[in-house]
Amino acid sequence: MENKLHIQEVVTRDGIQIESACITTEEKVNLINELSKTGVSKIEVSSFVSPKAVPQLKDAAEVFKNIDRNEAVTYVALVPNKQGAIRAVEADVDEINLVMSVSESHNMQNVRKTTEQSLQEFKKVMDIVKSTDIKVNGSLATSFGCPFEGEISEKRLFHFLRIYVEELGMDNVTFADTTGMAHPKQVQRLMKQAVNMYPDVPMTLHFHNTRGMGLANVLAGMDAGIVRYDASLGGLGGCPFAPGATGNICTEDLVHMLHAMGYDTGVDLDKLIALSEQLPGLIDKDVPGQVVKAGKITDLHKLD
Amino acid sequence: MENKLHIQEVVTRDGIQIESACITTEEKVNLINELSKTGVSKIEVSSFVSPKAVPQLKDAAEVFKNIDRNEAVTYVALVPNKQGAIRAVEADVDEINLVMSVSESHNMQNVRKTTEQSLQEFKKVMDIVKSTDIKVNGSLATSFGCPFEGEISEKRLFHFLRIYVEELGMDNVTFADTTGMAHPKQVQRLMKQAVNMYPDVPMTLHFHNTRGMGLANVLAGMDAGIVRYDASLGGLGGCPFAPGATGNICTEDLVHMLHAMGYDTGVDLDKLIALSEQLPGLIDKDVPGQVVKAGKITDLHKLD
Repeated sequence: MENKLHIQEVVTRDGIQIESACITTEEKVNLINELSKTGVSKIEVSSFVSPKAVPQLKDAAEVFKNIDRNEAVTYVALVPNKQGAIRAVEADVDEINLVMSVSESHNMQNVRKTTEQSLQEFKKVMDIVKSTDIKVNGSLATSFGCPFEGEISEKRLFHFLRIYVEELGMDNVTFADTTGMAHPKQVQRLMKQAVNMYPDVPMTLHFHNTRGMGLANVLAGMDAGIVRYDASLGGLGGCPFAPGATGNICTEDLVHMLHAMGYDTGVDLDKLIALSEQLPGLIDKDVPGQVVKAGKITDLHKLD
Repeated sequence: MENKLHIQEVVTRDGIQIESACITTEEKVNLINELSKTGVSKIEVSSFVSPKAVPQLKDAAEVFKNIDRNEAVTYVALVPNKQGAIRAVEADVDEINLVMSVSESHNMQNVRKTTEQSLQEFKKVMDIVKSTDIKVNGSLATSFGCPFEGEISEKRLFHFLRIYVEELGMDNVTFADTTGMAHPKQVQRLMKQAVNMYPDVPMTLHFHNTRGMGLANVLAGMDAGIVRYDASLGGLGGCPFAPGATGNICTEDLVHMLHAMGYDTGVDLDKLIALSEQLPGLIDKDVPGQVVKAGKITDLHKLD
């Protein structure tokens, strides 16, 4: 395994997309600017989807226009189709993230397309992007399970991985546990196969902590050699299927564990914690992150 | 590793001891009776401590008197001293749990004794118990870190382990991560040494999920060969040092993960979840457990 682990922040996209609180463009820009100084490798800034589908992210172009870019950070936009790709190119994003569910029924539910239609659309996006220096990340949603279909066939998962890499020529791939169904044995087994298939393709794991297994799944992914992890500040990003459940794995809880274990992430944990402390004010509710409440293991208490 | 994992329920002791809601003796008895039917190996029923110190558990003797005992379950009482041991013998407990912190300052803070004074007291308890068939479990609190002192010296941890096993003759030992400071690498390293020292002494790991690492720590313990895990229904058992933080690792979240990974616990997960659903009514607040909110990974959703 590489020594350095890459932490990729998704709070301003996956984290807040279903939050109902009004978060202003300025607040988003400020948060991204501060996150840019923490040492995270990537920030998924926003999504060029229909404002009707995701009203919280309708200001994607404005956000991209106003952020201060740090050369060391890759600024990503999620893009659902050709129209979104054109907007992303105009916004001068560093990377486009294309998402298709491995589960046919979840893809239909999520983007109203068959997987075949999604792949056709992705070809059009690749055509738009190829004359630019924008990178493309392909995400495989429901890689570890589908809330409608249950288990996902491995054959199907690796079939789409092959299409992403060999036919579409995507630069890197994300395996997303969209509704928190992955367990550590499964992660280790599938990721060993994926790394074995394409050892030179950078791969990301995107976990939700919906059933409490998020950090255990990260360790399983590391065992398989994966060094890139998506996470959301404060653990935002709850799922519509699981009211009250936790969201994405929490960035500061993840970094806290990795640093305790002696791994290098290049991330300033104290800065992350300070930013996470601002989130309840931004979204008008408590957040699932634990370290922000309990303190770091190195924060000692005074005796009476 | 043994194939069977042992799940040991602590909700009616560690789980509720700092809860301020009035939980009646009848409610505790009912909960224990239902837990006795779930397949858990042990239940830490209550604690024979001073009613002033822990008012929530002042009905320990009444609870023991009224529960229906299942032969397959070991019913445990925490005992702080000789007086507590006498009450525990009268209550006909199956096992006494003696707790001393490895950290000198934490032991003083927690039980107002030096570790030397605790060990002297434990000798008196062993004398009381030796003419009975009651087993004794020795817990080493703050095994993985102390909120006042920080890191705990390994030498000191294994020194007390040796005294517990060789000098006091305790039947089994629990390593407790009292305030949720353990991380997986540390757990794996220390538990390999402990198992190596005393391969025939049954050992338990007791984790709190204070900083989100609880389930990851269990997997690290399993790697080292530990097959006994304490957990609290609903994840109750928050720490006074970390307001709003999660408590003990959550029994149903733990069993859910282990079953997903193919391990045998002998526990009926659906019964556990049904019991956990009753907890908010019992303690008048939401509980940290995730599976009870999100459902099992095998609970599929219907398409629109």
